[in-house]
Amino acid sequence: MKTVLVLIPMDEAGRAQLESAAPGCRFVYRKRGEETGEDVRGASVILGGVDPKRIGASETLELLQISAAGTDAFLRPGVLGPRTVLCNATGAYSKPVAEHALAMTLMLLKNLHLYRDNQKEARWKYRGRERALAECTVAVIGLGDIGKYYARLAKAMGARVIGVKRRPSPCPEYVDRLVLTGQTDEILPEADVVFTVLPQFRETIRFFDRERFEKMKPDAIFINCGRGSAVDEQALYEALSGGRLAAAAIDVTETEPLPPDSPLWSLENLVITPHVAGTSLKSLRESITDLAVRNLAAWAAGEPLVNAVDMTTGYRK
Amino acid sequence: MKTVLVLIPMDEAGRAQLESAAPGCRFVYRKRGEETGEDVRGASVILGGVDPKRIGASETLELLQISAAGTDAFLRPGVLGPRTVLCNATGAYSKPVAEHALAMTLMLLKNLHLYRDNQKEARWKYRGRERALAECTVAVIGLGDIGKYYARLAKAMGARVIGVKRRPSPCPEYVDRLVLTGQTDEILPEADVVFTVLPQFRETIRFFDRERFEKMKPDAIFINCGRGSAVDEQALYEALSGGRLAAAAIDVTETEPLPPDSPLWSLENLVITPHVAGTSLKSLRESITDLAVRNLAAWAAGEPLVNAVDMTTGYRK
Repeated sequence: MKTVLVLIPMDEAGRAQLESAAPGCRFVYRKRGEETGEDVRGASVILGGVDPKRIGASETLELLQISAAGTDAFLRPGVLGPRTVLCNATGAYSKPVAEHALAMTLMLLKNLHLYRDNQKEARWKYRGRERALAECTVAVIGLGDIGKYYARLAKAMGARVIGVKRRPSPCPEYVDRLVLTGQTDEILPEADVVFTVLPQFRETIRFFDRERFEKMKPDAIFINCGRGSAVDEQALYEALSGGRLAAAAIDVTETEPLPPDSPLWSLENLVITPHVAGTSLKSLRESITDLAVRNLAAWAAGEPLVNAVDMTTGYRK
Repeated sequence: MKTVLVLIPMDEAGRAQLESAAPGCRFVYRKRGEETGEDVRGASVILGGVDPKRIGASETLELLQISAAGTDAFLRPGVLGPRTVLCNATGAYSKPVAEHALAMTLMLLKNLHLYRDNQKEARWKYRGRERALAECTVAVIGLGDIGKYYARLAKAMGARVIGVKRRPSPCPEYVDRLVLTGQTDEILPEADVVFTVLPQFRETIRFFDRERFEKMKPDAIFINCGRGSAVDEQALYEALSGGRLAAAAIDVTETEPLPPDSPLWSLENLVITPHVAGTSLKSLRESITDLAVRNLAAWAAGEPLVNAVDMTTGYRK
């Protein structure tokens, strides 16, 4: 009898759905972080965010369905054995992360961070002209599910949208211009808003370096809701403190939590949130449960899995 | 020869447009605030934000085209004589004010104001679950040009939108439910977001009083980008400090500038901007110039004016 280890919080209805998706399996439910080495070693399927260190290239594990979008922690050598198929939950995060990114974008365009600072000193003072997203060119670097949803919102607000993608594909109707990653440097000088949601992988490490920040308009704003590793933080610090970039907002940093002595904290024109962009959707748990049920059923029936990750690229196949 | 006093900043092209719209008139250009009593008394047309105190119910003044949306300062007895038609610039502000209001809405839903406070203390700390606008019911109190544009944006982001309007009209496709002002109390308990953009007039003074804040959900957020007079600030203070309302953001206050000793400044769950919501659009000057040219030409030709204000209600006719 195969074992399914469930680390996603499940109510009775969710458990019933799961158990009928893979009849004949044994189900073990654990709170995230409370799974034992034995639980992990015995499992043919793990649903939820297991500690990668516990997996140890298990030969038993056939399906690992994580509840996050980022796969980097599971791609490292020695984490997953050759039998394991990794599936992520990318689609579930599109709305909450894109909304968080849009909130950051508008906050910077309207100087709301500066007005919050004023408020602490009871100061009623104009902090410079606001900018309208309706008049901006927005570059979305990483046009996956999150990037697409953000692009759709920006377009609905009247922005001109440039999408940057790894692989050629038809241009969605809410994107004005679609280019490949290799053309990033061509389009950066056009963008008033640069939004990036790159996953962590070899090619994306410090993708935004000094040279790329120098290609941006001096009045551009930069938003990162992907992985902190995509940004050279020293270069970001220099661009922001040296007036090479108007403002930035980041939900992710190279080291998380961002150390208290990081010089980034004190930049007035930088907004920092502590990797929380995915926490908003009431229906998030529901989407992740649906995905888990669907993939568990597919696994039990030997059918193709949704969101299976290509282990050589880290992206969904 | 009739005189047109122009207080809107105009470049050469704008002046040429104006002058050809009313040939045979004398044009006087002044910086706003630098118009003399004589300039005002001699003018048949004033284009731009003249100081209401200088008008003194001038008998000469036929058309006053202001560059703001709010008309309250010109409705007071003794300001405009019976011959004067007042036109406002309501449409020009729809996008910038609606974007500012949306920025405030998302800031509160995502706790960005609290993360800004954290940042000042170099603290990487979760401040509670974010909420998705896509899962909110949004009530727009005052469905004029600004309210409509905000409703359109909220709808594009997936929200359910309730519009509250003074006069019956067909329901726009981006509004799920349209009600009249008298039904406000019925719909307030349904709303996660209450956005108001009421102009200042007799019926709107302290429209949001203790009773109305008590009708809102305890986890609702409240946004005001209309006039400060629409809100009983003491009631707002009590609702926010007493946990009767989750958070609020206001661009306008009863007294502006908000006095430094106002207790509102120190509320953590209140965001204050200093009446800046209309400052964002690059094309704002252009729209206002267009409106001035159009109404000047209509006036010269004896044709109907755009945005003429009903002096008994303060609204566009």
